[in-house]
Amino acid sequence: MEQFLEKAKSASRIIATMSGSERNRILRQMAEALRVNTMNIIEANAIDMKRAEEENLATSLKERLLLDEKRIDAMAVAIEEIAALKDPIGRVLDGWVTEAGLKIEKVSIPIGVIGIIYESRPNVTSDTAALCFKSSNGCVLKGGKEAEASNAVIAEVLQSVLVRNNLPKEMIALLPDSSREGVAKLIKMDRYVDLIVPRGGEGLIRYVSQNASVPVVKHDKGLCHTYIDKDANIENAIAIALNAKVQRPGVCNAMETLLVDKAIAQSVLPLLKEVFDRAHTQLKGCALTREVIPVAAASEEDFDTEYLANILNIRVVSGVEGAIDHIVRHSSGHSEAIITENISAAERFMDAIDSAAVYVNASTRFTDGGAFGFGAEVGISTNKLHARGPMGVEGLTTYKYKIYGKGQIR
Amino acid sequence: MEQFLEKAKSASRIIATMSGSERNRILRQMAEALRVNTMNIIEANAIDMKRAEEENLATSLKERLLLDEKRIDAMAVAIEEIAALKDPIGRVLDGWVTEAGLKIEKVSIPIGVIGIIYESRPNVTSDTAALCFKSSNGCVLKGGKEAEASNAVIAEVLQSVLVRNNLPKEMIALLPDSSREGVAKLIKMDRYVDLIVPRGGEGLIRYVSQNASVPVVKHDKGLCHTYIDKDANIENAIAIALNAKVQRPGVCNAMETLLVDKAIAQSVLPLLKEVFDRAHTQLKGCALTREVIPVAAASEEDFDTEYLANILNIRVVSGVEGAIDHIVRHSSGHSEAIITENISAAERFMDAIDSAAVYVNASTRFTDGGAFGFGAEVGISTNKLHARGPMGVEGLTTYKYKIYGKGQIR
Repeated sequence: MEQFLEKAKSASRIIATMSGSERNRILRQMAEALRVNTMNIIEANAIDMKRAEEENLATSLKERLLLDEKRIDAMAVAIEEIAALKDPIGRVLDGWVTEAGLKIEKVSIPIGVIGIIYESRPNVTSDTAALCFKSSNGCVLKGGKEAEASNAVIAEVLQSVLVRNNLPKEMIALLPDSSREGVAKLIKMDRYVDLIVPRGGEGLIRYVSQNASVPVVKHDKGLCHTYIDKDANIENAIAIALNAKVQRPGVCNAMETLLVDKAIAQSVLPLLKEVFDRAHTQLKGCALTREVIPVAAASEEDFDTEYLANILNIRVVSGVEGAIDHIVRHSSGHSEAIITENISAAERFMDAIDSAAVYVNASTRFTDGGAFGFGAEVGISTNKLHARGPMGVEGLTTYKYKIYGKGQIR
Repeated sequence: MEQFLEKAKSASRIIATMSGSERNRILRQMAEALRVNTMNIIEANAIDMKRAEEENLATSLKERLLLDEKRIDAMAVAIEEIAALKDPIGRVLDGWVTEAGLKIEKVSIPIGVIGIIYESRPNVTSDTAALCFKSSNGCVLKGGKEAEASNAVIAEVLQSVLVRNNLPKEMIALLPDSSREGVAKLIKMDRYVDLIVPRGGEGLIRYVSQNASVPVVKHDKGLCHTYIDKDANIENAIAIALNAKVQRPGVCNAMETLLVDKAIAQSVLPLLKEVFDRAHTQLKGCALTREVIPVAAASEEDFDTEYLANILNIRVVSGVEGAIDHIVRHSSGHSEAIITENISAAERFMDAIDSAAVYVNASTRFTDGGAFGFGAEVGISTNKLHARGPMGVEGLTTYKYKIYGKGQIR
């Protein structure tokens, strides 16, 4: 493992000084190579699909695993889109002259070697490899066991382009030991790996963040809130609440708890019940909510639960301060929204809540790289440091100071 | 401990929304309070000094521990300077409108509660408390055992100003259990503490970074290099090399290894020996060095050693590529310099080396917050992520996205 990572590290030093146009040219070749190898990839994917069948995997999992011509072309298009992004490397982020006359430039540079641990979808292999390559980073990929054959061929296809360009194939490396022990080792290798990005279930993420000595950018749970203020435009409020919950309940930026100002609870709760009933949402409410509409009782634990399902907690609160109190206690720091036409309430909410994304009059569902306009996304970080919220290629960079002197000493 | 940290956390929520002018007003009161309490502080310091005497602490340690009227005034001045810094909070770092018409603002915010672990110097107590307060963060301070009485009184004086302003004194908290076990607990409390900054010896830093579940900004060793290229202005080269080594050998931005281009080794090494001999520097050299000047042999291990003393390794290398090879293998990623008049050599060096600070024609000794113009400094980070190099108050901030909609859903 150490020898393997040493190769990945030294390959990352080569890509670190490659020009943007060179990286983009190779990315476009990679997209083309995926298209050319469509049949090989589909054959490998058939092996994974067959095993999935034998092991009786869930239909949703099989659906995610499947690759066909259209999906492989989409992977190629994704790489081309990444190639078309602005180069995140070498940007001068700041610059000034010091009292001693030193000219300082703060310049964006790659992080080094990035370890990415993910599950099922084989397109993540080419997406993340391309994002790391675009940002001049080496990568070590560890995909899910169930997609092993597909991932191996996809990585080989990308590596063949590297080799054709006289570059070490370890710039895009697949972890050789993909067992749990392999992961356990990888996350301790801070000599060779500079960042770990775990994408996947809560268990994986907790394990990695508690055991890694390599820095981790977590993509943890989203326990998102929407607060309907007494001064809300009710039509907007209902549309946004419904969208935040039901448009795609299984994702991290979906709402889990709806907070309603007690000044309007009597009039708004029945309207909310109507639309959520129509959407087959299972509602749970606090005592005050249940005085107005007949729903199941929500426990304190419910308010700390990320359902990832069409289930919604409702709590009646005392104005914006009551909403802030609840959110501070229960939020995971991902995304929260206030629905109001009152600018003071909106600004108070947005100042007091320190979640990665704080909305006024919009759905929390907008928290992602695409909606933010970042292009491809590495994930949605729930870290408070380094990268917060939607993480584009810029999240895969750090910086150094270049200092120009003419003989200065202290 | 948990109860104590919960109070610190909720105090941090109050300071998070205080205006900059309010924070500055209180900081100036803190400076004044230190001056007014000079005698109390000196009395408490006498207790620490007496124990230091009894325990036969080293003279240098006692020198660092001592507080007198002048030093207490300097602490007050430092707080006033921090109050005068630009507010790092609420800055709009970026902003744009998305395709869906959402107005996004990326805004700097405090990190939350910052735990700072440090040694001996009692002025660090007021410096770091003021830096955290300036950046709207709560702090939990853990100073050295040897400065216990001094730190307690300094913290009390600062807290009395908070109380006088009807603020919770836990905004500036001293860790109640200052034992090793107390530290062990603190660094695991990721529910309450958002960042740990260990300042001190290598042992402390290693212990904290390997055991913390709270994110850590390390202030680790500096194994800094200076490379004299064949195209160097020799007068500059000698002055810079001498300055980088001997001006203050005990600090992290001092040079440990000098690399000399073999094309000029014959002529430059004798000149270097002359000036370093005069400065009583103990020289160790590689085989090629020792063919030219009579110095002790440097082992491979020496090239990985941060001496923090007036000792210097010298290695003869093959041009700029040889220098890069050596630095990549031995550097701690802190600061490196090339001395050359050749722009291609300078740019190649500055591109290939990814240390936090890379210099051309200046001494590595400039890597600090003061010399960079950051004002007061939290420390010099050897992290690759979040904060790199000299860390001013900006390093104590993170960001969130404020998103303004008018009813958008997906």
